[in-house]
Amino acid sequence: MSLSDREYMQHLFDAFYEVGALPGGGVTRLGYTELEDEMHRRFAALAGELGCRVESDLAGNSYAYLKEADACVLIGSHLDSVIQGGRYDGVAGIMAGLLLLKRAGEAGLPLPLKVAAFRCEESSNFGCCTMGSGLVTHQLKEGPEKLARLIGKNGETLGDVFARRGLSMTPPRITGIQEYLELHIEQGKVLEETGARVGVVSTIAGPRRWKLRLKGLAEHSGATPMSMRQDALCAACEIVLAVEAIGRREAALCESVATVGVIQNTPNALNVVPGAAELGIDLRGSNRDSLDRMEQDTLSAARTICARRNIALAESKLSEMDPVSMDESIQQGLMAAAERLGISCRTMPSRAGHDAMAFAPLFPTGMVFIPCEKGISHNPLESTTLESILDGTDVLWEYLSHASQAQIMP
Amino acid sequence: MSLSDREYMQHLFDAFYEVGALPGGGVTRLGYTELEDEMHRRFAALAGELGCRVESDLAGNSYAYLKEADACVLIGSHLDSVIQGGRYDGVAGIMAGLLLLKRAGEAGLPLPLKVAAFRCEESSNFGCCTMGSGLVTHQLKEGPEKLARLIGKNGETLGDVFARRGLSMTPPRITGIQEYLELHIEQGKVLEETGARVGVVSTIAGPRRWKLRLKGLAEHSGATPMSMRQDALCAACEIVLAVEAIGRREAALCESVATVGVIQNTPNALNVVPGAAELGIDLRGSNRDSLDRMEQDTLSAARTICARRNIALAESKLSEMDPVSMDESIQQGLMAAAERLGISCRTMPSRAGHDAMAFAPLFPTGMVFIPCEKGISHNPLESTTLESILDGTDVLWEYLSHASQAQIMP
Repeated sequence: MSLSDREYMQHLFDAFYEVGALPGGGVTRLGYTELEDEMHRRFAALAGELGCRVESDLAGNSYAYLKEADACVLIGSHLDSVIQGGRYDGVAGIMAGLLLLKRAGEAGLPLPLKVAAFRCEESSNFGCCTMGSGLVTHQLKEGPEKLARLIGKNGETLGDVFARRGLSMTPPRITGIQEYLELHIEQGKVLEETGARVGVVSTIAGPRRWKLRLKGLAEHSGATPMSMRQDALCAACEIVLAVEAIGRREAALCESVATVGVIQNTPNALNVVPGAAELGIDLRGSNRDSLDRMEQDTLSAARTICARRNIALAESKLSEMDPVSMDESIQQGLMAAAERLGISCRTMPSRAGHDAMAFAPLFPTGMVFIPCEKGISHNPLESTTLESILDGTDVLWEYLSHASQAQIMP
Repeated sequence: MSLSDREYMQHLFDAFYEVGALPGGGVTRLGYTELEDEMHRRFAALAGELGCRVESDLAGNSYAYLKEADACVLIGSHLDSVIQGGRYDGVAGIMAGLLLLKRAGEAGLPLPLKVAAFRCEESSNFGCCTMGSGLVTHQLKEGPEKLARLIGKNGETLGDVFARRGLSMTPPRITGIQEYLELHIEQGKVLEETGARVGVVSTIAGPRRWKLRLKGLAEHSGATPMSMRQDALCAACEIVLAVEAIGRREAALCESVATVGVIQNTPNALNVVPGAAELGIDLRGSNRDSLDRMEQDTLSAARTICARRNIALAESKLSEMDPVSMDESIQQGLMAAAERLGISCRTMPSRAGHDAMAFAPLFPTGMVFIPCEKGISHNPLESTTLESILDGTDVLWEYLSHASQAQIMP
């Protein structure tokens, strides 16, 4: 191929374009579905163009590489999306990885590179995130029994999905990783507002997720006096606003966030007082004390509200990941690489979760952020530029070349 | 047939039992669906057992009668249900009507009776109630164009449903009605708490229904700081609680009620700040000033909340029905009938809507309530007894026999 870097990036972007495309410009490519499979098939075809071998593991993740090696630098990200998501979350990192492979092949970089496309990084399908990377690193807090019982958006359990696909909840732990690197859109506004072209991630916030189920009494909305109701939706709404208030307080203290992203109301009919409701709650921060406070205060508020309203409450923790720090020397190496290239750069925390979280406890791990327009992500309006993806890829390439030349790596 | 009244009631109850039956004991029989059709087929078969002719009109309603007559007493109710509803709402009135037809045939009551099974009395499918009775009485506030655009739970418009079934949004107005009578479960706790076996309805509350659509911005739940969010769900929850507060205030003043029964959150994913939400609001009362206040205060609260949160708000009125009074002399006649039978009885308002609302402006109209257990309705736990249905039917029979003997009617 004799494409310029920019032309090659456009080629990669176009190759994924139509998979799960929505009329409004966004995409829906849920993890462990046929649409995610199609993304992986296209990834394999693109890697094949570069002369790569492509393999998959027992969690369904795909790996592309030019040559076998005992230890490699793994460049990873994911190919699934949220419901009505954007075209760059995950895919940008895979594009960066493929361009690094292309350059390594052309330049003969004496550094074994492997690009990993992980499965089901988003929690949108099964309520559990970084599944593909978490399974092969043995970093998921949930055991295989609990995972098998998770129910996807189409009503099927993850256990059935894995059985049908011949996948395993207990794959062998991944080995032969020298370093793990990931490029990702920031999904926030820090880079855009500060004018930095690239960010080097210092820590990744730990998400804690809860499901609350509320049970009141479904009754006729006309004939049931206000004073005699057990309205599950009203209780749920009080909890939503309590979570927001807790998030605002902790945002001021520790830059944490708290979100109710999911509400299910039953029977959800105009003429029935809601008899049951479910909430999905997402708490995030880099500070463990703040996470503990948010968790306790959320549960405490829910219990008080439900007790006052005579609503039964069932609490279940969906997932918990500890905040993790990126490798110090990789951070310094990435900052130095950006400086040598004249690309403005800053270190910053990530409040979004990433596949890198699963690798950080096991291997030296680093992440590069690139700006996305207005910080919008998990939305069809999500946008970045091929130039920004190239900026981040250039920083990774410069870092890898320098490390390779300096014989820091094998 | 030589069945006792109670055996015949059991026969009727059993005949409808399995249609739309749910594992938990309730039923889902949405209006203008195949399951409602099946209810009407069974109604026709039961009427056929009595030697009745059965006809349907251009709104899909069914009518059963023994002999043609220029003017009849129409006994009506409905055969559809809410989502996850009970087995008596509507069906009890149809059972009463069939028993009255059976007795009239056996006793040779010189009074032309007709039993009507109306379509889609519940708003659960199309967000609009008393459709079958409202169409043939020309009492629906919504014009045919607006009705045609209503979207059912399966995504099909009412216009398409009617076209496929050969029905009309503009059927001729029903004629030849001397009086309209209806038996219904109370769907409240007044009869149970006061120990009366039968209620005679004085007024029926008017429901006003609104849909509010909120548009914020869907963003990553981790990466979007609390201070930069436009969370549509949080705004929706504030509105839900405002509606509840307005309902409580008006309950104390005028026994009105206000309910948010429907909430749709988009994209409804754990890791996305909600970008859009819809609410379905139901306001009911017998006092027009109270209805006006509730409506204005609800819209005013929604506008204030959305403006403060930078959320776009779209308001649309789904339906409005005026409170209606039942005929005074029918009320007195029903009370006198109950007294002659020694059945304890009281007059009472209805806050639930009924098909009788559509007939009251055109014909002398009366309603009989029977108790239901704990006042629970629109719920699989909804329950009454065959004895209670017989109590109400006896009062109607005594009233009709007396009127017939006194030659008040033709």
